[in-house]
Amino acid sequence: MNYPERLNTAIPNDKRKISGESLYGLIEELYPICRSITGDGLRKSLQIIQEKIPLNICELPTGTSVFDWTIPKEWNINDAWIKNSKGEKIVDFNESNLHIVNYSIPVDKNIRLDELKAHLHSIPDEPELVPYRTSYYEERWGFCLSHNQLESLRDDVYHVYIDSSLKEGSMSYGELLIEGETEEEVLINAHICHPSLCNDNLSGVSVAVHLAESLLDEDCRYSYRFLFIPSTIGAIAWLALHEENIDKVRHGLVLACVGDTGNVTYKTSRHGQAEIDRIAEYVLNESGDTYDIRPFSPTGNERQFSSPAFNLPVGCFMRTPFGEFPEYHTSADDLSFVKPGALADSFSKLKKMIDVIENNGTYLNLNPKCEPNLGSRGLYSTSGGRVESKINQEAILWVLNYTDGEHSLLDIAEMSGLNFKQLKQAVVNLERVNLLKRLS
Amino acid sequence: MNYPERLNTAIPNDKRKISGESLYGLIEELYPICRSITGDGLRKSLQIIQEKIPLNICELPTGTSVFDWTIPKEWNINDAWIKNSKGEKIVDFNESNLHIVNYSIPVDKNIRLDELKAHLHSIPDEPELVPYRTSYYEERWGFCLSHNQLESLRDDVYHVYIDSSLKEGSMSYGELLIEGETEEEVLINAHICHPSLCNDNLSGVSVAVHLAESLLDEDCRYSYRFLFIPSTIGAIAWLALHEENIDKVRHGLVLACVGDTGNVTYKTSRHGQAEIDRIAEYVLNESGDTYDIRPFSPTGNERQFSSPAFNLPVGCFMRTPFGEFPEYHTSADDLSFVKPGALADSFSKLKKMIDVIENNGTYLNLNPKCEPNLGSRGLYSTSGGRVESKINQEAILWVLNYTDGEHSLLDIAEMSGLNFKQLKQAVVNLERVNLLKRLS
Amino acid sequence: MNYPERLNTAIPNDKRKISGESLYGLIEELYPICRSITGDGLRKSLQIIQEKIPLNICELPTGTSVFDWTIPKEWNINDAWIKNSKGEKIVDFNESNLHIVNYSIPVDKNIRLDELKAHLHSIPDEPELVPYRTSYYEERWGFCLSHNQLESLRDDVYHVYIDSSLKEGSMSYGELLIEGETEEEVLINAHICHPSLCNDNLSGVSVAVHLAESLLDEDCRYSYRFLFIPSTIGAIAWLALHEENIDKVRHGLVLACVGDTGNVTYKTSRHGQAEIDRIAEYVLNESGDTYDIRPFSPTGNERQFSSPAFNLPVGCFMRTPFGEFPEYHTSADDLSFVKPGALADSFSKLKKMIDVIENNGTYLNLNPKCEPNLGSRGLYSTSGGRVESKINQEAILWVLNYTDGEHSLLDIAEMSGLNFKQLKQAVVNLERVNLLKRLS
Repeated sequence: MNYPERLNTAIPNDKRKISGESLYGLIEELYPICRSITGDGLRKSLQIIQEKIPLNICELPTGTSVFDWTIPKEWNINDAWIKNSKGEKIVDFNESNLHIVNYSIPVDKNIRLDELKAHLHSIPDEPELVPYRTSYYEERWGFCLSHNQLESLRDDVYHVYIDSSLKEGSMSYGELLIEGETEEEVLINAHICHPSLCNDNLSGVSVAVHLAESLLDEDCRYSYRFLFIPSTIGAIAWLALHEENIDKVRHGLVLACVGDTGNVTYKTSRHGQAEIDRIAEYVLNESGDTYDIRPFSPTGNERQFSSPAFNLPVGCFMRTPFGEFPEYHTSADDLSFVKPGALADSFSKLKKMIDVIENNGTYLNLNPKCEPNLGSRGLYSTSGGRVESKINQEAILWVLNYTDGEHSLLDIAEMSGLNFKQLKQAVVNLERVNLLKRLS
Repeated sequence: MNYPERLNTAIPNDKRKISGESLYGLIEELYPICRSITGDGLRKSLQIIQEKIPLNICELPTGTSVFDWTIPKEWNINDAWIKNSKGEKIVDFNESNLHIVNYSIPVDKNIRLDELKAHLHSIPDEPELVPYRTSYYEERWGFCLSHNQLESLRDDVYHVYIDSSLKEGSMSYGELLIEGETEEEVLINAHICHPSLCNDNLSGVSVAVHLAESLLDEDCRYSYRFLFIPSTIGAIAWLALHEENIDKVRHGLVLACVGDTGNVTYKTSRHGQAEIDRIAEYVLNESGDTYDIRPFSPTGNERQFSSPAFNLPVGCFMRTPFGEFPEYHTSADDLSFVKPGALADSFSKLKKMIDVIENNGTYLNLNPKCEPNLGSRGLYSTSGGRVESKINQEAILWVLNYTDGEHSLLDIAEMSGLNFKQLKQAVVNLERVNLLKRLS
Repeated sequence: MNYPERLNTAIPNDKRKISGESLYGLIEELYPICRSITGDGLRKSLQIIQEKIPLNICELPTGTSVFDWTIPKEWNINDAWIKNSKGEKIVDFNESNLHIVNYSIPVDKNIRLDELKAHLHSIPDEPELVPYRTSYYEERWGFCLSHNQLESLRDDVYHVYIDSSLKEGSMSYGELLIEGETEEEVLINAHICHPSLCNDNLSGVSVAVHLAESLLDEDCRYSYRFLFIPSTIGAIAWLALHEENIDKVRHGLVLACVGDTGNVTYKTSRHGQAEIDRIAEYVLNESGDTYDIRPFSPTGNERQFSSPAFNLPVGCFMRTPFGEFPEYHTSADDLSFVKPGALADSFSKLKKMIDVIENNGTYLNLNPKCEPNLGSRGLYSTSGGRVESKINQEAILWVLNYTDGEHSLLDIAEMSGLNFKQLKQAVVNLERVNLLKRLS
């Protein structure tokens, strides 16, 4: 196998730096749709993505067993409202799909306030926000509204109407495999089951779509598998279907809440020091920006990939972590909460991580007894001089010293404090004069 | 083997929190007795303990070989004093048994001040305190007194009188084995050879007695062996007698100086990261109180248990370490120096350590491929809600993720920051629905 | 094997503390000579050293292959100058040998300023200093001068004259093996190829010479090999010649820049935690002086010893590291830059390191079951007392506890915080009463 050409190939700038507007635009397009873990909203969202990347949309029928779980009935909704006795719509699904408890069963009846209240959800501490609530696995109906509105409801007879259906159908998810030189895979995952919520997780969806797009016409060493799946059941289903090939996954990333203006937070894989974890820390550290590395905890979609039988090296790339911003799971996680600049920054850092994933490797110094005569090979300045050339010599000395078969380029970058790109260049130069060969 | 019932059994409050007064009361009872490494004072002290717990009082005859040592002659004392030429008792054993150098041989003669001074011990830096001195292995006689008194002695002829005996006899020690489900033992040791000194170590003796008492009618997983032994020679003798069964000891604690008002200090076992060491740190950390963890050093009775051939996992639980408080080995280590509250706090923390010792274990997740469907088993709230129930779900997720056969509950507690009790409850709940089984 | 006598032998004070003046004196003697990686200046320097220690001066002929390199032609120089059109010598080799680019080829011609400037070297940022420049592997000629002088040169026709030769000859280096009880070697290396520069590296040369002198009539456990070699090519050549015996090297030190008044800096071996690295840290820490420990980097002569195929445990002992003081490789690294006191301090710390190298070892406690009866062997005070004797007992207890075959004396010193000398004394005492035997 021979990688040097690729190492030398600079990725064009336009691929690395994508405009925040494009990232934001896809969020705008997906925002109004009422998604859930099944149903037409999810399906339509995947079709929109399919216009950008050649996504494979998969359908898993209701009732399919996936490990300890069963694919639930498919949920769809047309309309929902609450009217007061004057016939005024006081809560309307068409204004915001957060008003309906996701997976609500149909209802059409008049009830008194007392009875209605058992079906209403609000956030007393955030009285102006509408919460996001679901009831996937217990048949219920309910509405969500601001606490201010809830408090203002008068004793009255209300007409509640939900035109939804819960029927045999299927769970949809999207998958795109971009084949690389090897069958070893990098898994990139974004959950796509939330309705009109931007940071959680249309931001992750949009960044993942754009990462996929940017990789489509690159020659990659790894194969990249992008998954746009419902939370929990989606990850479980995918793992159940791909159990036999799961050992192909060499690196993985869950993208969630990557559009707010907070600093980047990276939650490590369960292993804690997997290559992906070290790459994340290396890239974040080199960025000069403030960031936070957190140890693994069994939360989020990553906990399925990290369950004991799989224990995949999957980290989670976020900005402000889910549950730690007040807008989380409320109507305030809207189009104003995510920013083009933050999305572009997330994209750029992830692209740099992919660059290191692609170019990391272990090499062997073919002249391990003392330093080779670099000057005779044009790799050592005989007259001294410019700072840049001096740094390259330093990179060459580091690469020569640690290409003992036990250290990767990432190891050398961490030890030397030198830039990964400089070390790659040193590798290219040393391979050219047959002083180095790739091991893995 | 099946432990879940016990895990679920809350230890009654009255057992966990014993009154400081009871702990202090035993010290008061033992304080006046003149103990040594042999003799009737030691024997009487063990008999007083026997009134509280079914102690086995053992006697090892003078001359018995124990490893490199020999059990010494038994020492007893009836009376001792110094009179001046007017016949006034100026130093009197009956006022404080610290006045006599422990193991002093008999004497009855008139001597001048110059000669007397060679037999007098004081602490120039603490001129009001009477020191504690011994001469077990070299036949001597001597008196201890305050430096102020020593300085005030006039040139005179003094009558020195020690009515003691050093004869063939035996060394006494007390032992109590509380049998548990397994033969694996937790060794709890307090030295009992010091005369009227409270913190060192009637405090350790009293806390050990009360711990034993509290475990007597519990169903324990481990067997608990309590040792009330003389320093050095006692530990050596016990190890020599029990050498063949020494590998039953899985955890051990030396209790010393546990009644002063200083913070708790824990000195680790020689291993440094033995389970007992990690349990101590976990419990002390969770208490919220200030504490100090120190690395092992070959001092105190623990050095015999930790000698290279045994290297037992025995830590040392103290408040202010021996030698680090000015009252140490002086008449100021009296009944006013130890406090009921401090004793109760030591007892309580040790009881919590025993709780973790008992309940720590390794379990296996029987559904390791992704998260099991907890909702269908009543272990996941379908409607969200109270903080307490949310925490339990978190505990369940942590337990499920790390019960891979390689992590103990203590590991999970350390990683998650969750309370040990919550994790135990999660284990009980998961065992109930057959999602978990105990490995060890 | 039996070492106790040596352990007990205090090294006489006059050997440990050598006068800074003697160290400085040798630098003064060597300073005027124009050295290079070959030639008579190097040869003469080795002869001066030979007057102090029985150095073996080796000659490797031009053209000899040493790994990937070839011994270059021998360079010698008699005179060199630049005259202006008035016949005034404006740059003169006889004033400072730094004025000539080391390894300049002969030249004798008149040239205009423009052409001359291509052959002149200065330091614009340090306009008063003359730089040190070389061109070993490309045939060039050139002069070095202060930037002030360079700037002041008028348009003129200059006569440049270099009376040098570049011919078949040999590369000289000096080697001294002081044989010890074992064939295991301690390698001590100082590069000796620089012309009139003091800290880099006549300081290292002088300290190495004096260390060798001090070891000549000692009975050492290790064999000590001192190398006075040219940079890079010298180390490569020596390694090529000694490849078969290279595994005898158990510890190594490169001495460079050890005469300035900065704090000591120790750069670890490539291993990072080799015994030599731990000894350096132990000695520096115990000195109470400020110091800096740096991780390995593949620079300096040490990078040849540390190339992947050899990976020798060679650290680098410096004061201010090369390249980090402004005088480095300039005319300011002169006799005023190095100080007798700094040289003496470097010598003393290195001597202490050698002391630990010599005396470190692994012992076995022959009475590992509990503490042996030290009192019966005269190793335990029965009456208590002086602080010093107390410390010795502590040292004895630490040694007894950790001489389990898995800990060296250095391990015990690090753990206990006790002085290495106290621990050695404890070893001597315990060996005397057959409680300890040496393992390695």
